[in-house]
Amino acid sequence: MTLTMTKTMTVEEQAISAKKAAKQLGILSTDDKNEALIILADALENNYEAILAENEKDLQNGREKGFEDAFMDRLALTRERIVDFAEGLRQVAEHDDPIGDVLSDWTLENGLNVKEIRVPLGVIGMIYEARPNVTVDAAGLALKSGNAIILKGGSSALSSNKAIVDIMHQALENTKVPKDAIQFIATTDREATQQLFTMKEHIDVLIPRGGGALIKAVVENATVPVLETGVGNCHLYVDGEADTEKALKIMINAKTDRPAVCNAAETLIVHQAWLENNKQQLAEAFQEHGITVHGDEKAAAALPNVVPATETDWADEYLSLDMAIKVVDNIDEAIEHIDQYGTKHSEAIITENAVNARKFLQVVDAAALYHNASTRFTDGGALGFGAEIGISTQKLHARGPMGLPALTTRKYVMVGDGLVR
Amino acid sequence: MTLTMTKTMTVEEQAISAKKAAKQLGILSTDDKNEALIILADALENNYEAILAENEKDLQNGREKGFEDAFMDRLALTRERIVDFAEGLRQVAEHDDPIGDVLSDWTLENGLNVKEIRVPLGVIGMIYEARPNVTVDAAGLALKSGNAIILKGGSSALSSNKAIVDIMHQALENTKVPKDAIQFIATTDREATQQLFTMKEHIDVLIPRGGGALIKAVVENATVPVLETGVGNCHLYVDGEADTEKALKIMINAKTDRPAVCNAAETLIVHQAWLENNKQQLAEAFQEHGITVHGDEKAAAALPNVVPATETDWADEYLSLDMAIKVVDNIDEAIEHIDQYGTKHSEAIITENAVNARKFLQVVDAAALYHNASTRFTDGGALGFGAEIGISTQKLHARGPMGLPALTTRKYVMVGDGLVR
Repeated sequence: MTLTMTKTMTVEEQAISAKKAAKQLGILSTDDKNEALIILADALENNYEAILAENEKDLQNGREKGFEDAFMDRLALTRERIVDFAEGLRQVAEHDDPIGDVLSDWTLENGLNVKEIRVPLGVIGMIYEARPNVTVDAAGLALKSGNAIILKGGSSALSSNKAIVDIMHQALENTKVPKDAIQFIATTDREATQQLFTMKEHIDVLIPRGGGALIKAVVENATVPVLETGVGNCHLYVDGEADTEKALKIMINAKTDRPAVCNAAETLIVHQAWLENNKQQLAEAFQEHGITVHGDEKAAAALPNVVPATETDWADEYLSLDMAIKVVDNIDEAIEHIDQYGTKHSEAIITENAVNARKFLQVVDAAALYHNASTRFTDGGALGFGAEIGISTQKLHARGPMGLPALTTRKYVMVGDGLVR
Repeated sequence: MTLTMTKTMTVEEQAISAKKAAKQLGILSTDDKNEALIILADALENNYEAILAENEKDLQNGREKGFEDAFMDRLALTRERIVDFAEGLRQVAEHDDPIGDVLSDWTLENGLNVKEIRVPLGVIGMIYEARPNVTVDAAGLALKSGNAIILKGGSSALSSNKAIVDIMHQALENTKVPKDAIQFIATTDREATQQLFTMKEHIDVLIPRGGGALIKAVVENATVPVLETGVGNCHLYVDGEADTEKALKIMINAKTDRPAVCNAAETLIVHQAWLENNKQQLAEAFQEHGITVHGDEKAAAALPNVVPATETDWADEYLSLDMAIKVVDNIDEAIEHIDQYGTKHSEAIITENAVNARKFLQVVDAAALYHNASTRFTDGGALGFGAEIGISTQKLHARGPMGLPALTTRKYVMVGDGLVR
């Protein structure tokens, strides 16, 4: 009877094994970690055919199940995409290593030296949906920040993810990084995910990435601390004194550039006076870009083809070329609407009025606030943070795009010479 | 029929009211907040008799219920203690205001200016046990950091806490701080506490302060993010090459200075060789300071009056003049024991061996690590952080003593001139 390691290990055993590996990985030098990242990158590139073969199984399965085109597109790998994965790992190797940074250093009058040192979190549990790129990105960021990672991807990408992890495991044999630092939960049952929720002893943080339902399930059921990512019900508020050209350009970009991502705009809140003066151009912009408009009564009175908006239009992300429109009489009404329906992700005001801009930026509660710019900039790459593990919409620990520092904590190290209080 | 506001408001209404107040408080100037802190301090000092009268009711109730001396001591107020509360508020007024700090500021090539600005968390839910000083300390730190606070103290201090909050509410009438920014849950039922656990819409963070059972209940049941504080099962490891004088001095301080606090040492892990050479002096130190020793077989063989240690001796805090002793053959065994039983609070090594010291400080996973110094230094005041709202034993958001910055988050504010991606 021969079973492979992966098959005989329970989820808890995998977590224990990750924790042990985290201790070794956490104290590796930057060079050792970077070398491993390069070796992983090369291995993925060199074995792209094996990955594509396994990906084809997932695609076949997806076609049989009749998944949507957008979903299939996120699932599909190509040689180019795999080269991009490898390139991503090489970029992570070039990032500064946050581990070991001395964040502060002081000596008390009694002679006690105090150093605040950046250290890894330990073990990260990553729970995600279809996209196989998360498997590579998350493993790379975890490795660079000295953390072990437990990967639980969506069942629709199981074969692709498994192929990627197998190649990474083989490649790690030639590095100082223990291969147990990357754990893959190779099962499709939900119980495995739920087990991760409560393993406080072995897992330091859970990061869910995917749709609102997944994130909600993790936040509501996990006792392990969670880094909440991603749902973005983002608003553009076009103020009474908005410049027409800027407003239209930003609306089109925020809505249509990549409608399915979390930093796309979902609702246009527009000042009555601006709407009166610009309804023609706004209607043309909607039509030209294929945007379906769901609006309140005032919007329907000013614009053609407005579908009456219901509560869900205000509350949910469309992630498509649909947009809700709410007409307001002043900035306070706009802020109130955002307070009620926003998800604290990204919110923008378009105005030439400096007082209103200042008020909006100060009062609205969100990770990212914009004045005369598109919400699409809320992204680690676009803002110059480098690779990101997700966009935090919570307030604790990390807010907005999360790069390597979000995967770290600190310890205080005190040295005395027999000092007592 | 006239009912007072407090009586007619539900916990949810109080939370909503706190959230509204947080918006006003969050944008007040530093001067306005400091002025309010001074007015609160004066009001508490001037009304000490009213507080003492209400405190007497709690004490009377405590005596009837036969509470322990240590508990009664924490509950009892005196004029001096109230003066200390006021002094604490005045010190918070002198702390730097973290709100509005620009943590980073850069401009992208496309001209988008990005500022990372420190802002309040919003609404803090504080759930705590007997000590009425938490009512004042937490309110003061929340106010200074621009946060509204919902106070849910222990039922045994209900009259004292209510008196303190009433005085603070009256005093706030003369300030720019809305009095709704301090909410007090004036009921003893547990349901009120449980309601706080899930009010994600209105409460940004819960901070439990008290015993392990309270903290566990909050962590396991809350969907609101939690800042976990305080359980400290702290260890001293006396290495083979420890200096005798330093080891004994630190052991006595860490165990006996204030046995009931979280940074007191609970277990002494001692190297076999050091124990052999120092058993006489160690036994004398235990006897002289009234320390009851619970140990393993090797400790019992070397020392007099050793109570056999059981699992709970290793796992739990004594918070008394009891101490567990485990004898080890090397540093790795010591680290393993700490890994298994430590609560990631404060851990110390006593040694003259630099290699072992470095290993311990690097490998042990805790908020505070000490070499040749007492664990008693893990305290915001002692380390020079100023006032603290608790000591975090978690890894996310804040670790170790939590001062004002732990009560803040950040927002990214981006300004463009019609910029799109």
